[in-house]
Amino acid sequence: MVPHIVIIGGGFGGLSAARALRHADVRVTLIDRRNHHVFQPLLYQVATATLSPGDIAAPIRWILRHIRNVRVLLANATRIDTAARRIELSDGGSLDYDWLIVATGSKHAYFGHDDWEPNAPGLKTLEDAIGIRRRILIAFERAEREEDARRQRDLLTFVIVGGGPTGVELAGTLAEIARQTLRDEFRTIDTTRARILLVEAGPTILQTFPENLRDAARASLVRLGIEVREGVAVTAVDSLGVMIGSERVDTGTVLWAAGVAASSLVKTLGVPLDRAGRVVVEPDLSIPGHPEVFVVGDAAAFTQGRKLLPGVAQTAMQGARHAAKNILRRLRGEPTTPFVYRDLGSMAIVGRRAAISDLGWIRVSGAMAWLAWLFLHIFMLVGFRNRVVVLFGWAMAYLTFQRGARLITGDTKTTRF
Amino acid sequence: MVPHIVIIGGGFGGLSAARALRHADVRVTLIDRRNHHVFQPLLYQVATATLSPGDIAAPIRWILRHIRNVRVLLANATRIDTAARRIELSDGGSLDYDWLIVATGSKHAYFGHDDWEPNAPGLKTLEDAIGIRRRILIAFERAEREEDARRQRDLLTFVIVGGGPTGVELAGTLAEIARQTLRDEFRTIDTTRARILLVEAGPTILQTFPENLRDAARASLVRLGIEVREGVAVTAVDSLGVMIGSERVDTGTVLWAAGVAASSLVKTLGVPLDRAGRVVVEPDLSIPGHPEVFVVGDAAAFTQGRKLLPGVAQTAMQGARHAAKNILRRLRGEPTTPFVYRDLGSMAIVGRRAAISDLGWIRVSGAMAWLAWLFLHIFMLVGFRNRVVVLFGWAMAYLTFQRGARLITGDTKTTRF
Repeated sequence: MVPHIVIIGGGFGGLSAARALRHADVRVTLIDRRNHHVFQPLLYQVATATLSPGDIAAPIRWILRHIRNVRVLLANATRIDTAARRIELSDGGSLDYDWLIVATGSKHAYFGHDDWEPNAPGLKTLEDAIGIRRRILIAFERAEREEDARRQRDLLTFVIVGGGPTGVELAGTLAEIARQTLRDEFRTIDTTRARILLVEAGPTILQTFPENLRDAARASLVRLGIEVREGVAVTAVDSLGVMIGSERVDTGTVLWAAGVAASSLVKTLGVPLDRAGRVVVEPDLSIPGHPEVFVVGDAAAFTQGRKLLPGVAQTAMQGARHAAKNILRRLRGEPTTPFVYRDLGSMAIVGRRAAISDLGWIRVSGAMAWLAWLFLHIFMLVGFRNRVVVLFGWAMAYLTFQRGARLITGDTKTTRF
Repeated sequence: MVPHIVIIGGGFGGLSAARALRHADVRVTLIDRRNHHVFQPLLYQVATATLSPGDIAAPIRWILRHIRNVRVLLANATRIDTAARRIELSDGGSLDYDWLIVATGSKHAYFGHDDWEPNAPGLKTLEDAIGIRRRILIAFERAEREEDARRQRDLLTFVIVGGGPTGVELAGTLAEIARQTLRDEFRTIDTTRARILLVEAGPTILQTFPENLRDAARASLVRLGIEVREGVAVTAVDSLGVMIGSERVDTGTVLWAAGVAASSLVKTLGVPLDRAGRVVVEPDLSIPGHPEVFVVGDAAAFTQGRKLLPGVAQTAMQGARHAAKNILRRLRGEPTTPFVYRDLGSMAIVGRRAAISDLGWIRVSGAMAWLAWLFLHIFMLVGFRNRVVVLFGWAMAYLTFQRGARLITGDTKTTRF
């Protein structure tokens, strides 16, 4: 009987692990509770109506269709029983494994304020993105119908919590929508006067970038009319507004881009977790006491040179490939090797011809960084169709300021407007 | 004070009415409970994962952005008070009118069996389409995990109720998905063996078409391996299957394309309705006793030459333009004129290079009709972006058999898999 390797999660990590095992004499089962892989770096563009959900997602079984030793199952893992080497599923079924790669990623976290979630939604799934899109578009629609000037102003105030790449990207796109996309379409409100605040509790936005790039990004945000608040924390969120430090801001829309925690499934592994719920993995990415179980990507805490690896696609992909190779080494009777992360750089986009790019050997901002960002993201997208459609969507947004997916969908019975 | 014309509904009828009033000295308010117009003839392609919701929809206020005398409001009308000339809205607000055009369309109807709806969803909105897409895709996913052969067979059985254009189009596309799109992606099931039944209670499918075209369409369906059942009614629907006449068919997926009724709002007009809840309008499209209220499209019952006008886009568009002109005539002190519908023909598509087209002066089936169908639908779509993206999506589906939007989205908590 060939060894059975189970991969939990069809994100960047899970797919890389499956691909790394394609020529091995093993049976692979990849499970995910979604049928699709989502290209998370572009999720904010779905949330801001530029792209359709289908443009940045692809069915996992389609992506892996040519890898004959991989079976893909739509299933929701609820518990990992490391003693029995068994995964329990939400429908009562179970799945036995010889080797396990956990690549379940992260969810947004509210630092002990889970009650903020209904009023400050985060952005991790396509449903999150569709929900945020609905909130943003409905805010303008309600403002158009509102007769009270103060309430109208609150509806046209948007607060984005968290100054990492996602927060910056959301703020930049929202500003373009208000200043350009919607400007001719309303009869009562002036959408160009919408107020957009970006709040970062740490000393600066885009903390992981060098100072000169951060300054360039901040300048781009200010040019777009965004109020950037750094070094001040959001201390309260309710349905009518937020407290930013000691200042009350009344707003109809708060978006959360401030924190993540590992997916809860890893709690069932019974090994030590860090404060954000991530598994503190061994140097070879296995978990303490269970050399047959590996954790990669956002679900793992891996420290290199005193720094925790960042929660980006590269960390998950490199880790997953390494975990897969370590399993194959063990199957050949060889010892595992420690994981070494290779930093390929990072990028963030602010708006039209405005981005920053730090590749280590070169650091640029402005139009060059923006072009680099566009090409890298098109290149990394899965599938020819998605590449063409995304490129076309961007060209349209760039040339006409229009957004291709400005739909308010979802249960209209529960939508208040 | 210029006269205030209110249009309820942003479908084909509502948009045509707004456009017909663009040069008149009137104030127009168009309300819809959605922010977007949906191109309903292509809704089945969203339900079958070929197109994304955003590809066949566009924001109503974007479509009408250049018409300065039109104001668009996102609002849900709950009651029309014809005595007070006032529309009540779901949020407690109201809207007064001098003239009213009701273009609220239709919803699916179950002929007194509303309890069938949860197990046999219909296709009228984008949410309906996304829900049907989820059901179809999940059926294959569950079949892949099912170990009981009989249950697996039931999951791979699809019953489509209603042999009009929508039913035929759904059946044809579903057959292509099972036989081509998914064939290499599963490891346990053979998707090409999926069973697809199309059930029509009337004597024949596509009743409104001439016999030779019907025969051509039926032959195309049979070539795709679809079981066409005519002259037999579905008499029961439950969560495990349907009764087709006296035959029990166990199935995991039933789709409803059998009947429509007018939207319930017209009940509040207090005028006679026909059996399907449509307003029996006067020859000039106004309602009895209220010459300032007009009803057009699917919400109206209008008989011409002893035949009820069909529930298609042309009926709504021509009717709406006529109602708008009658209002302008009345404002000039002239009498209204009776509506005369001009039949521009009808079309239905079965699959690749298979369609039927009846334009009165020419009746064709096969590749010619298919090309005509494609071009007409691209031409009628709103917006350059949508035209390009839909054309590209069709080209991909035609050349590679792939579907661009194979996503299972929605609340995963309530999705059983």
